Amino acid sequence: MTAKMSRRDMDLAATRLKGHIVETPMLTSTEFSARVGRQVYIKAENMQRSGSFKFRGAMNALMSMSSRQRESGVIAATSGNHGLALALAGYRLRVPVTVVLPEDAPLVKRRSIEQLHATVKTYDRREGGRDAITQMEANRCGLTVVPSAEHRWIITGAGTVAVEMLRQAPDLRAILVPVGGGGLAAGTAMVATGIDVIGVEPAAADDTARSIHTGKKVRISAPLTIADSLGHTAPPDLTLNINKRGLADIVTVPEPAIADAMAHLWRHWGLKAEPSGAVALAGLVQALDRLPRGPVGVVLSGGNVDWHTFRSLLDVSMERTDPHDDSQPALPVRR
Amino acid sequence: MTAKMSRRDMDLAATRLKGHIVETPMLTSTEFSARVGRQVYIKAENMQRSGSFKFRGAMNALMSMSSRQRESGVIAATSGNHGLALALAGYRLRVPVTVVLPEDAPLVKRRSIEQLHATVKTYDRREGGRDAITQMEANRCGLTVVPSAEHRWIITGAGTVAVEMLRQAPDLRAILVPVGGGGLAAGTAMVATGIDVIGVEPAAADDTARSIHTGKKVRISAPLTIADSLGHTAPPDLTLNINKRGLADIVTVPEPAIADAMAHLWRHWGLKAEPSGAVALAGLVQALDRLPRGPVGVVLSGGNVDWHTFRSLLDVSMERTDPHDDSQPALPVRR
Repeated sequence: MTAKMSRRDMDLAATRLKGHIVETPMLTSTEFSARVGRQVYIKAENMQRSGSFKFRGAMNALMSMSSRQRESGVIAATSGNHGLALALAGYRLRVPVTVVLPEDAPLVKRRSIEQLHATVKTYDRREGGRDAITQMEANRCGLTVVPSAEHRWIITGAGTVAVEMLRQAPDLRAILVPVGGGGLAAGTAMVATGIDVIGVEPAAADDTARSIHTGKKVRISAPLTIADSLGHTAPPDLTLNINKRGLADIVTVPEPAIADAMAHLWRHWGLKAEPSGAVALAGLVQALDRLPRGPVGVVLSGGNVDWHTFRSLLDVSMERTDPHDDSQPALPVRR
Repeated sequence: MTAKMSRRDMDLAATRLKGHIVETPMLTSTEFSARVGRQVYIKAENMQRSGSFKFRGAMNALMSMSSRQRESGVIAATSGNHGLALALAGYRLRVPVTVVLPEDAPLVKRRSIEQLHATVKTYDRREGGRDAITQMEANRCGLTVVPSAEHRWIITGAGTVAVEMLRQAPDLRAILVPVGGGGLAAGTAMVATGIDVIGVEPAAADDTARSIHTGKKVRISAPLTIADSLGHTAPPDLTLNINKRGLADIVTVPEPAIADAMAHLWRHWGLKAEPSGAVALAGLVQALDRLPRGPVGVVLSGGNVDWHTFRSLLDVSMERTDPHDDSQPALPVRR
């Protein structure tokens, strides 16, 4: 679990995953780039299988484990993109998948996971310890636990995002990534060693930012943020250790800036981002004067958001930022 | 203007335009394909420069004319995607562009075109004949008129969409395209000769469908459709003649089906389509049992739509089609 990782592992993972994952496009916008005074590339991982970059790590995990582990099956505790990604990866590779969800998880998430033939186990939040429950179930049934961030399989899978980005736009001077469990940030930092990798967290879920700034792991109380995939209470040791050394900077963004970034992505790129998926672009706007000159890559990490949420957030943002200008046609440009 | 065109012209145009246009992605959705029982590829021309496929024809026109014509400048009558495309093409190639707009055109369209340094001429709709006004202005200033559909430059430029589609997914058995002036349909029919090319029109703007079905040009009264780019009153001779022979079928769709197709594109592919851009997908749903078996390509022709319009149409569609299921995560997959 703490085995050394390097750029070479990410390149190998990219080769392993070829044909299994989507090489998502890097998209630019003439208008947005003009507005911020530099070329901005969006890495559209909302177009990844399962709707988020998480599919890369999930697929890499299933392909990296022994065939015996695959036959016995895997288990993960998450109600979000990691669970959906693992369910889809298992469905495609015929690996039995169990997803541990809280009893009160949205019905629709449960149904999506079940549609992919995964087994859903529920637990009562009040009886606590979802990780303990997951481990117990894993032991009982001989399942391999697939964590959402703190594992080399997951981190190297996530690192393939940056492998593609640097191939698609070799002139990048910086990459911005959202930080939840920190797996994407860690993988990116290990791939993009020559340029600045900047992590972005919601200010309301700044466990990694605080931990990096104070030099030791900080635990925060349950975060309240629209970026639900990034609502961690403390960074795992493995990713924190990598990100402490590997990130050039870590930026935090207020909630309205996240909704604004969703609106930018819709208007200028024609893309549906979930709130967590727009956090890195919010960080770009926030930290513009701290970035090196030159082209910047921004990871749009996922697009799994329902219409009601999307509409409410864009309504608020359009009204606040640009009440008379919301009909400006986008001029999207793809490299 | 009536010179013969062939697949070879489209291939040459594709070579000419390389590096100047975006090779837009072909995107599939596991979930949507399962729902309609066949692989469906969306050709995402909303990601084309200027936000619609019209940029291909506009750019091809400017690159195909003589340098003398380029120096003197060009003119087009349109308030829509063709005008925006021509303004952007002229901006990039330093060709002076004049766009003839009705006095009451939306301010935002006028501003977008002016931002690209194009000259805007307005006219009073009540005094009629925008084509006459355009020709008069062209004669007065020595400008070359660039029509929106009825010209070989425009048709061969539009044909490059299908050149790319057949390279990206050689197993396509049919392609569906929206029909306004019919330039995209004509170009596609000349490229995809071995498979079925199916035109789709709003039922409220079915001038080409009626003309093909009756065998002679039919003029309809001013169409009222949300697909504003397709609201033509009569097909031009040049495109009608090609489409009469080249289209395997022409399908018409009611207005609510267009809004539903916009909702499908948002939910399953995470893409912003303008109403006209979603018409071909609406046609797919409508004509499912008339299509040949096997993979189908659908052209999403443009994405220039304001938030207010987009939101209203999706609200109505979500409420009608799937009131309890709108939060289902998309599982988009890109080839």
